[in-house]
Amino acid sequence: MTSLTNYKYAHFIVTSPGPYVAHVEINRASKLNAFHRNMWLEFGDIFDKLSHDPEVRAVVLSGAGDKAFTAGLDVKAAAEEGVIAGGGASEDVARKATALKRYIFEFQECITRMEKCEKPVICVLHGVSIGLAIDIATCADIRIAAQNAHMAVKEVDVGLAADIGSLARLPKVVGNSSWIKDVCFTARPFSPEEALAVGFVSRVLPDKKSAVEAALQLAGKIAGKSPVAVQGTKELLNHARDHSVDENLRYTAIWNAAMVQSEDVKKALMAGLTRKTPTFEKL
Amino acid sequence: MTSLTNYKYAHFIVTSPGPYVAHVEINRASKLNAFHRNMWLEFGDIFDKLSHDPEVRAVVLSGAGDKAFTAGLDVKAAAEEGVIAGGGASEDVARKATALKRYIFEFQECITRMEKCEKPVICVLHGVSIGLAIDIATCADIRIAAQNAHMAVKEVDVGLAADIGSLARLPKVVGNSSWIKDVCFTARPFSPEEALAVGFVSRVLPDKKSAVEAALQLAGKIAGKSPVAVQGTKELLNHARDHSVDENLRYTAIWNAAMVQSEDVKKALMAGLTRKTPTFEKL
Amino acid sequence: MTSLTNYKYAHFIVTSPGPYVAHVEINRASKLNAFHRNMWLEFGDIFDKLSHDPEVRAVVLSGAGDKAFTAGLDVKAAAEEGVIAGGGASEDVARKATALKRYIFEFQECITRMEKCEKPVICVLHGVSIGLAIDIATCADIRIAAQNAHMAVKEVDVGLAADIGSLARLPKVVGNSSWIKDVCFTARPFSPEEALAVGFVSRVLPDKKSAVEAALQLAGKIAGKSPVAVQGTKELLNHARDHSVDENLRYTAIWNAAMVQSEDVKKALMAGLTRKTPTFEKL
Amino acid sequence: MTSLTNYKYAHFIVTSPGPYVAHVEINRASKLNAFHRNMWLEFGDIFDKLSHDPEVRAVVLSGAGDKAFTAGLDVKAAAEEGVIAGGGASEDVARKATALKRYIFEFQECITRMEKCEKPVICVLHGVSIGLAIDIATCADIRIAAQNAHMAVKEVDVGLAADIGSLARLPKVVGNSSWIKDVCFTARPFSPEEALAVGFVSRVLPDKKSAVEAALQLAGKIAGKSPVAVQGTKELLNHARDHSVDENLRYTAIWNAAMVQSEDVKKALMAGLTRKTPTFEKL
Amino acid sequence: MTSLTNYKYAHFIVTSPGPYVAHVEINRASKLNAFHRNMWLEFGDIFDKLSHDPEVRAVVLSGAGDKAFTAGLDVKAAAEEGVIAGGGASEDVARKATALKRYIFEFQECITRMEKCEKPVICVLHGVSIGLAIDIATCADIRIAAQNAHMAVKEVDVGLAADIGSLARLPKVVGNSSWIKDVCFTARPFSPEEALAVGFVSRVLPDKKSAVEAALQLAGKIAGKSPVAVQGTKELLNHARDHSVDENLRYTAIWNAAMVQSEDVKKALMAGLTRKTPTFEKL
Amino acid sequence: MTSLTNYKYAHFIVTSPGPYVAHVEINRASKLNAFHRNMWLEFGDIFDKLSHDPEVRAVVLSGAGDKAFTAGLDVKAAAEEGVIAGGGASEDVARKATALKRYIFEFQECITRMEKCEKPVICVLHGVSIGLAIDIATCADIRIAAQNAHMAVKEVDVGLAADIGSLARLPKVVGNSSWIKDVCFTARPFSPEEALAVGFVSRVLPDKKSAVEAALQLAGKIAGKSPVAVQGTKELLNHARDHSVDENLRYTAIWNAAMVQSEDVKKALMAGLTRKTPTFEKL
Repeated sequence: MTSLTNYKYAHFIVTSPGPYVAHVEINRASKLNAFHRNMWLEFGDIFDKLSHDPEVRAVVLSGAGDKAFTAGLDVKAAAEEGVIAGGGASEDVARKATALKRYIFEFQECITRMEKCEKPVICVLHGVSIGLAIDIATCADIRIAAQNAHMAVKEVDVGLAADIGSLARLPKVVGNSSWIKDVCFTARPFSPEEALAVGFVSRVLPDKKSAVEAALQLAGKIAGKSPVAVQGTKELLNHARDHSVDENLRYTAIWNAAMVQSEDVKKALMAGLTRKTPTFEKL
Repeated sequence: MTSLTNYKYAHFIVTSPGPYVAHVEINRASKLNAFHRNMWLEFGDIFDKLSHDPEVRAVVLSGAGDKAFTAGLDVKAAAEEGVIAGGGASEDVARKATALKRYIFEFQECITRMEKCEKPVICVLHGVSIGLAIDIATCADIRIAAQNAHMAVKEVDVGLAADIGSLARLPKVVGNSSWIKDVCFTARPFSPEEALAVGFVSRVLPDKKSAVEAALQLAGKIAGKSPVAVQGTKELLNHARDHSVDENLRYTAIWNAAMVQSEDVKKALMAGLTRKTPTFEKL
Repeated sequence: MTSLTNYKYAHFIVTSPGPYVAHVEINRASKLNAFHRNMWLEFGDIFDKLSHDPEVRAVVLSGAGDKAFTAGLDVKAAAEEGVIAGGGASEDVARKATALKRYIFEFQECITRMEKCEKPVICVLHGVSIGLAIDIATCADIRIAAQNAHMAVKEVDVGLAADIGSLARLPKVVGNSSWIKDVCFTARPFSPEEALAVGFVSRVLPDKKSAVEAALQLAGKIAGKSPVAVQGTKELLNHARDHSVDENLRYTAIWNAAMVQSEDVKKALMAGLTRKTPTFEKL
Repeated sequence: MTSLTNYKYAHFIVTSPGPYVAHVEINRASKLNAFHRNMWLEFGDIFDKLSHDPEVRAVVLSGAGDKAFTAGLDVKAAAEEGVIAGGGASEDVARKATALKRYIFEFQECITRMEKCEKPVICVLHGVSIGLAIDIATCADIRIAAQNAHMAVKEVDVGLAADIGSLARLPKVVGNSSWIKDVCFTARPFSPEEALAVGFVSRVLPDKKSAVEAALQLAGKIAGKSPVAVQGTKELLNHARDHSVDENLRYTAIWNAAMVQSEDVKKALMAGLTRKTPTFEKL
Repeated sequence: MTSLTNYKYAHFIVTSPGPYVAHVEINRASKLNAFHRNMWLEFGDIFDKLSHDPEVRAVVLSGAGDKAFTAGLDVKAAAEEGVIAGGGASEDVARKATALKRYIFEFQECITRMEKCEKPVICVLHGVSIGLAIDIATCADIRIAAQNAHMAVKEVDVGLAADIGSLARLPKVVGNSSWIKDVCFTARPFSPEEALAVGFVSRVLPDKKSAVEAALQLAGKIAGKSPVAVQGTKELLNHARDHSVDENLRYTAIWNAAMVQSEDVKKALMAGLTRKTPTFEKL
Repeated sequence: MTSLTNYKYAHFIVTSPGPYVAHVEINRASKLNAFHRNMWLEFGDIFDKLSHDPEVRAVVLSGAGDKAFTAGLDVKAAAEEGVIAGGGASEDVARKATALKRYIFEFQECITRMEKCEKPVICVLHGVSIGLAIDIATCADIRIAAQNAHMAVKEVDVGLAADIGSLARLPKVVGNSSWIKDVCFTARPFSPEEALAVGFVSRVLPDKKSAVEAALQLAGKIAGKSPVAVQGTKELLNHARDHSVDENLRYTAIWNAAMVQSEDVKKALMAGLTRKTPTFEKL
């Protein structure tokens, strides 16, 4: 397991279990990997780095320990940070609203950096996976669940509408509006099988270990492909999610006008003809 | 079954089978609950009222009688109202088109009020559920089917493209474009199992009675949650359906900048810690 | 099998196996129906003609021969056309990019004409169905697979992001983002069953013959309906895919303000009452 | 001055100073035509009626009396209605926000009905024209100022961002962003000449009387044209404001596919050839 | 005056009055350059060719003769083509609407090709410039008027809303909504000075001759710049017109990621340092 | 001149010439205030800080020295950074394009932070104001020019389309498309008078000194208003620029549902009644 030595964080472990693959683990197992502010600042920073790191072509995200991917926001820490009360500095509703708006924007932006990471991210849901766990998972490209994953869009049970991305992204990720509203209004848990049936995850493995292994294998497979092709595919699929077909076609053509000039096309074609494994320059 | 005494309508029964739950029944069973103009005007009015009624936090919609949710537009009545012929006042194509445009806008708007109702709406499809039944169902947040539901996007069989919402909303509700076009081009019926498999409904119950009971139970569960959280969740999910992820995140933050200042957050957190059922102020 | 005599093409067979039904076959079986530039120019031309042909109300697309729907781009031909190298005329990156942009636009536009064809198109995936096969299939309204269909979004394996429509349209066609990214990043094949489960196809038949028959039957059924109703339904569903619900409702009303003035409405209603098969004027 | 007898309102006078022309006057001169809630409810109702009234083809809006078009919101009345305080029913920030949201939506919607009125509306700004006066004026199609018009986007001076439409519409109405922000941030008054130079109004007349006369003459001229053509022009220009050019072209074609079938086209062409004044059927 | 020998058209003259400059003249002076269907088909074809012609970097459009830029649609010809009556093939309103829709789409698309032409187009308005003249002018990048230009959005006077682009594009071209609606509702003529004041044209010259000369000079100046830079600027400004600032920035970055790799950047920089005139490769 | 002590930067001076007003000066006069990478990183950082600084309610931006606002990008420095050559790390076109894309994104984002700064920004254009000067100026809310301002969208003269915002924002800032394309295609300078006439600036002062004074006075006036009202106005006007009217109205209502609960409304109303200057809490 090589390198990635620049990734020293208090609450995350970042390793490289294979060529061009990074594994990010949320590392606060004693608290079910619950997040406080410093954690999401670190989280954003990690995915910014991975995004431009030429040693990385695919990323796997999971939680440290056996119990949880993440139990979501560490409510106690949030209370101490004074955020839930609106920053505390003022009693004026508009000023509290402004403080909260800035706080939510910062929080959203940190999590969104995983979505904007240029490299594909595979998220493994295992154990407790509620609240923020779902916000994070919807930012990933591919979702895999372990059999013991306990998933719920939990925010309604703490008196608020989920605001770090679950409601913004679930309708883009799952084509079953009736199910989405059911789980979001009730905060009820849903099983890996249910998640698979509706398309929230695309695979279920027996336990965390096998799920992480499957994710790493998939990441390895992706890391063997042309990074120009893979990263273009991520960009264009994310663009497609938010635009009309006509807009997508135009954007795609502009994108590929530069990208198909890459040596990767020739290398990949040649590799196909010679049935050898191609080697691509770093990106 | 309490109150909701303000809801006196010729063609709908509105009752309250449990705390903060409203049950709306289409009440023209002798005509398979088929709609004429007065009915959709009433329909719009009911959901406008429910939207702001502090006694209501979740709504169930079903049809009176055993035979039908609704058989759709009462074509005979529509013919008598002269609408299909373009209002009759003029023979000029442009003037007929104008009359028809106004008529369709009014009809659409009445049905859309269920979608815009701030409280979640659960729709129970049972018996004959064709044409307008599907337009209405796609406006609901959650769809449940009884085993006897006979569903079809029937409009092609009367020579027109469905214009009260089925075509506008089905692609947002179901992530299976091939299936949608199949049922919309052919007007063929589809079974509850098929509807469940593609995600048009999220649950199938053995008969109308059990389906309505399941819907009321689900409504009851939702009604027990913070109304600030639930109604925000509905608003933000509907916004997400029609906007990009970036737009959604920004709108969500602005929304929650006010909403997380609610007492409901503290009450819900406290209730979570003390494992008691919270009580929320009306909304 | 009548007429359609105006459709003489070097690489496509166009026949009429039943009233108002056209069958388009990609006819280069010796090369697994792989495409070169002349073929997509013909392809675009055919669907332009079908779009306005009053003898046609529904179209089926399949590949000639037993081996392939299509193996996608004929890479050798493309290399000879000099396109992959950027047109060859200049060594300047910007000028190559401009040549490639124009080339991709032309290619996209030819394939898109099938989507913009006013008549419904049913695509039968059978045998080798990779790369461009998926671009084409996502332009169809309804997708049916034969059991032997070997499908893959293959472009990553030739070093590029798919640019003729797969990435632009898959998120509109299938409501399972995790699956889409899995198959697009890895270029792995997926089975007809998998395609059915995620909603990429809406039906699987035992072999090519039965799949084409099923498609023709479905086309025949659609061709028996009012063409005003069916073609309006296609237009409005495609519009719905790319717009918000409010936009869709307004566009729908404007569309139908003209269309429900059609004689087809009266004919269809009368046919419903008299239980006779209606006959509609050509469109 | 004929008819329009159905327009009996407490705070508005509606007359018909010429064929197919309606003149709406805000009639609360003793309070500088300042608005309270009943007034905007009436305002919305009037423009709904005018929209479908076949006797009306163009509308002029002005204020009664010599002093003001309107001084905007009647703050004292708003305070008594309890709105500024958030409806009063609850002390909870989220519940107050909900009450305010509903109140603002209702207020906005009433004013917006003038914009959505199918007939062109010409607004005459004269005397005091501040706050809500600008919200209303931006809903009009054409703006004319009298020399004595005292205009200002005044809301910042009462501690809030204008929320009834000025900020939503000014950037669509005037192509001078630097000027818009200057007058909106400072709440400073601007002169008719300044308004003309930046394009907020398209004409300045010496006094109220001449401005109203000019507006009525313009309305008369418009009322003499084909109502199919004029009302289509309004619809399509408003659509163009909010959509891309490609969207506009498509919408325009769909709209005109019905509308150019009108007799008005033949009548107008014939009138052009014979140099006679055409007479068009009511709409 | 060199080459451009491939441009042989019945109703247009295409010359090259200077290096990389094309001059297109509408050549039906005997009929005030009024358009019939063959003319707009030719018009679209010409701009398609110019778009990819490496000998052309800037285009000027004017009318042949002294009397008119163009008097718009040749109504008599249109009547003979049967279009205004809806194609004639059917009496059914829906079928006529379909024929008209196809006709308008084709007409719009031909004119739009000037907008989509990759090279800048400067339009000289002179003499009679009404109806279609304005549709065409709004497709140009830069508009110059001769003092004798007689301009009007004339369509309302023939009983229809302008449908070939004036209403779709005027709000994008001129930031003065009140003026736009005035001239579109009344069909009144407006003077070159008025056009200059509101920004419809950016320059007025004393007569046709001087206006065409000024346009050719401007075209010559543009043609001396890097074609990569100029054509990118056109593309990005047209994109900006129809998208949000955030969308524009992203699209711009993707575009320039290829384009700034051009040799033109180095040549232009070097030319700036050495104060010599750069020479750029064809595009 | 008080405080703002936290703003220590190598290339910018940040002072507070009056209550709640910040003055930012680009401080590299020896090089005509031309930018290199460290400068735009500092620039972004400054506006991030100002955005949340409770001591600041309005900002003025100008250049240090008498010669230039800014001469734009320091091309020599950019060449040394290796950016124009695509980062240098790879010869592959796709990899260069990726490096350039990241570079442009970072550059754009730093400049955009001025636009996203919650406080109004007034930009004073004086002396040399070309290239990046215009990109920056279009991010400001209000533009003022000194008589000696020499302005040009200069990028075409260095062989590229402007990519830091001029092309993205000019069509939103100025409603005169013909003029925009003229100055962007030719890179010609335009005078302050011309800028005023088309609305690029809203005021011209005789020299830099008077222009900065006018800007500071205007900033002072804005700083005296309720910061809740002013900052809401900026947010809502920027939202309006990029959205439809209907979207704007909804967003406005959600925004104000929190903001009109502010004490500022009461203070401002009371101040209006008592004709005293209100004092608002910091924001």
